[in-house]
Amino acid sequence: MTTPTATQRGRVGVVVVAAGAGTRLGADVPKAFVTVAGRPLLWYAAHAAVQAAQVGCVVAVVPASHVEDAQDLLEPLIRSSGVAVQVVPGGAERGDSVLAGVRWLPAECEVVLVHDAARAFAPPDLFDRVAGAVSEATPAVVPGLPVVDTVKSVDAEGLVVQTLERATLRAVQTPQGFRREVLLAAHAAYGSLATDDAGLVERLGRPVLVVAGDPLAVKVTTPADLATAERIAAGEATGVSGA
Amino acid sequence: MTTPTATQRGRVGVVVVAAGAGTRLGADVPKAFVTVAGRPLLWYAAHAAVQAAQVGCVVAVVPASHVEDAQDLLEPLIRSSGVAVQVVPGGAERGDSVLAGVRWLPAECEVVLVHDAARAFAPPDLFDRVAGAVSEATPAVVPGLPVVDTVKSVDAEGLVVQTLERATLRAVQTPQGFRREVLLAAHAAYGSLATDDAGLVERLGRPVLVVAGDPLAVKVTTPADLATAERIAAGEATGVSGA
Repeated sequence: MTTPTATQRGRVGVVVVAAGAGTRLGADVPKAFVTVAGRPLLWYAAHAAVQAAQVGCVVAVVPASHVEDAQDLLEPLIRSSGVAVQVVPGGAERGDSVLAGVRWLPAECEVVLVHDAARAFAPPDLFDRVAGAVSEATPAVVPGLPVVDTVKSVDAEGLVVQTLERATLRAVQTPQGFRREVLLAAHAAYGSLATDDAGLVERLGRPVLVVAGDPLAVKVTTPADLATAERIAAGEATGVSGA
Repeated sequence: MTTPTATQRGRVGVVVVAAGAGTRLGADVPKAFVTVAGRPLLWYAAHAAVQAAQVGCVVAVVPASHVEDAQDLLEPLIRSSGVAVQVVPGGAERGDSVLAGVRWLPAECEVVLVHDAARAFAPPDLFDRVAGAVSEATPAVVPGLPVVDTVKSVDAEGLVVQTLERATLRAVQTPQGFRREVLLAAHAAYGSLATDDAGLVERLGRPVLVVAGDPLAVKVTTPADLATAERIAAGEATGVSGA
């Protein structure tokens, strides 16, 4: 782990991907703009990012229709944190949105964290843990939790092909951290497949390290998840999964 | 799917495994005796089992210290449902407890469902769905949910070995259903490994079918899960996971 320093802070940038539609939440706004305890998920995600000790820049990538809303929402964060926060419109695919965000980050951001706004309650120390583990030897780092349930793989008929060795499994979260040039190379090679940025780095044949995730970094996907999110926002939950 | 009939009802027995210690819940009673909305998890599990249309017999396997408590708890269920409910003491290992339960089931129970009391809110129709899919061709049937998070396997250093094909993964639950003789053969061959009964059948080389699980069948493992369970018991939750 690298101890954060003033220099280090400037070298870590965060891309908050908030361009998804979120139809499963049943809302009439993009998922990142669904509110929990009165504030959009995007606000929580950006708030955690600017609070991380190592983060110097944050860019939120949102639907073109919501750039102004997002600027209004995040402006107070810039004033209170002193961290640069920018809003840019997303692209056609998730990979395009990630690249739109990375392009905005200053050149001194050698480490880029890509974060899903739907994991709005990932705490600041998770950003620091991931960023601190990114190195030449491990140019991609993802947080992950042990898997609670037995997991089996099935064929098209639903017949079990294999029961996986649970102790080796990790359910991965975001923020995922990368050396900037490795993230860009991975997207250049395989970006059209990008639902899992670290998976692109794996395809490049470069090492990906899993560090301890956080139950609070649960993805808000369904109305039931929103109920959990309300509990987290109210400070009632210190752990939200069986992990 | 088999339509339940009077004959079918008598042919399905349920073993509710409730012999675990449950230390992660931080309670001073075995996990199945931790209460939610005033009732132990075991009560909910047995209540759902007797309500399933196809179930004719239920046996709860509990720590020897709690046999009388369990009898007092479940006696009213017998009177109200007309389904035979028995309590037996568990064995040293989980596999021993499963066999202790199966031994008690009448010979006409050709289909045995093995259920974890910690999945206390698995609804009655899940028992019926699993039992109805057990056949000569598919002698073992487990309920499973799609996996929401990207899952990777890691080595001892935490480096990613593989990203699994998420679409093929199922997080499996209970009740798991078996032709009785196949369950007994699997335990006879590999019972000492039994944390996942269906996995034993896979090792026998027999087919295991995954049918649709239910978010309500979530395993109650941590204090945070208990909060979710309270919501379920209060009827607030119709779905509790991202699946």
